[in-house]
Amino acid sequence: METRKISQAVIRRLPRYYRYLGELLEDGVERISSNDLSKRMKLTASQIRQDLNNFGGFGQQGYGYNVKYLHTEIGKILGLENKHNFIIVGAGNLGQALANYSHFENQGFILKGIFDVNPTLRGMSIRDVPVRMMSEMKDFIKENNIEIAVLTIPKECAIDVAKDLVDAGIQAIWNFAHVDLNVPDNVIVESVHLSESLMRLSYNISRYNEDHADK
Amino acid sequence: METRKISQAVIRRLPRYYRYLGELLEDGVERISSNDLSKRMKLTASQIRQDLNNFGGFGQQGYGYNVKYLHTEIGKILGLENKHNFIIVGAGNLGQALANYSHFENQGFILKGIFDVNPTLRGMSIRDVPVRMMSEMKDFIKENNIEIAVLTIPKECAIDVAKDLVDAGIQAIWNFAHVDLNVPDNVIVESVHLSESLMRLSYNISRYNEDHADK
Repeated sequence: METRKISQAVIRRLPRYYRYLGELLEDGVERISSNDLSKRMKLTASQIRQDLNNFGGFGQQGYGYNVKYLHTEIGKILGLENKHNFIIVGAGNLGQALANYSHFENQGFILKGIFDVNPTLRGMSIRDVPVRMMSEMKDFIKENNIEIAVLTIPKECAIDVAKDLVDAGIQAIWNFAHVDLNVPDNVIVESVHLSESLMRLSYNISRYNEDHADK
Repeated sequence: METRKISQAVIRRLPRYYRYLGELLEDGVERISSNDLSKRMKLTASQIRQDLNNFGGFGQQGYGYNVKYLHTEIGKILGLENKHNFIIVGAGNLGQALANYSHFENQGFILKGIFDVNPTLRGMSIRDVPVRMMSEMKDFIKENNIEIAVLTIPKECAIDVAKDLVDAGIQAIWNFAHVDLNVPDNVIVESVHLSESLMRLSYNISRYNEDHADK
């Protein structure tokens, strides 16, 4: 599909469109107007029309959007029609939680391996995927066409392990370590900094309490 | 502290400033110029000066910023000088991972309870906090001054449980369920939608591959 340069703000909203359209599909809804979608998503209808116009616009005036078509097309834009092999690096609680999340597989993300430094975890499997030792990681990436590594290890080791991942030719890192990774431009990093999210929550509680103490 | 209306973009960056300043403190750095901080954080120096000016500006021309002072002041702005009691709702893998993350406690977030519907989890404890049954949740919130609930349950139950949390007087919800919550304006919601983050990663892989296929 031909796409122009799309703003990061629109891209950030696409997964949310995908999720809402998926829910509509599950509910058996075939068509939806930008007005009805706007009520559900709490975006303005004009914002929705503007966003979806970025992709050539799938709506027909007066008929609304074809939910299934739009869901499929946004899925394509998000790259979800392709399979992506991934590994999890760090078999602690968070690594195990992500390994158990079978929903990722429905979206084309296939868990191929789990790695840890802890030898007591050797022999453990999660959803039939065995935990392997970190020393095997680089070869495994090269031999199994691994595109994505999920980093769920402490920040102290994350930077070194990221270097190993880059050396092994990884294409993307989904980073849960509490540190920013310095990787070459051709490696994609998406970070989830849970502590920062919790701090935003804390900030909003403080502001709310302050506002109400003033009154 | 007197603060004017601060833009959401600045607020989103504050936890990251807090993290970098914390690292500098750990490394024994006492003062830092906006130029040096800009190199580390990959923001422009003028962006940094502009951001920090929102809080009255802690820098002195030619002397740089006092790292400890700035770290403390940003911590105050983020509400981290207050203790926040929280519960985790959903003792699955993700709930357990978050319950085990002791780092939150250093930032003032105190885990008081864990709740689940699964009776086989009764009697289990994580870091000395017992798993309780969901039927006890509302009373527990009221009796233990709980401010924050962390929702790590499937989306099918999240909306109903969010209603119970609101009824019990919860102030904020840290939502990991894959659904947007409709709560009254006085309840703060911060959502972590992991699937959406993974889709952004997938999108960036697709765009990268497309760009390089063109050449």
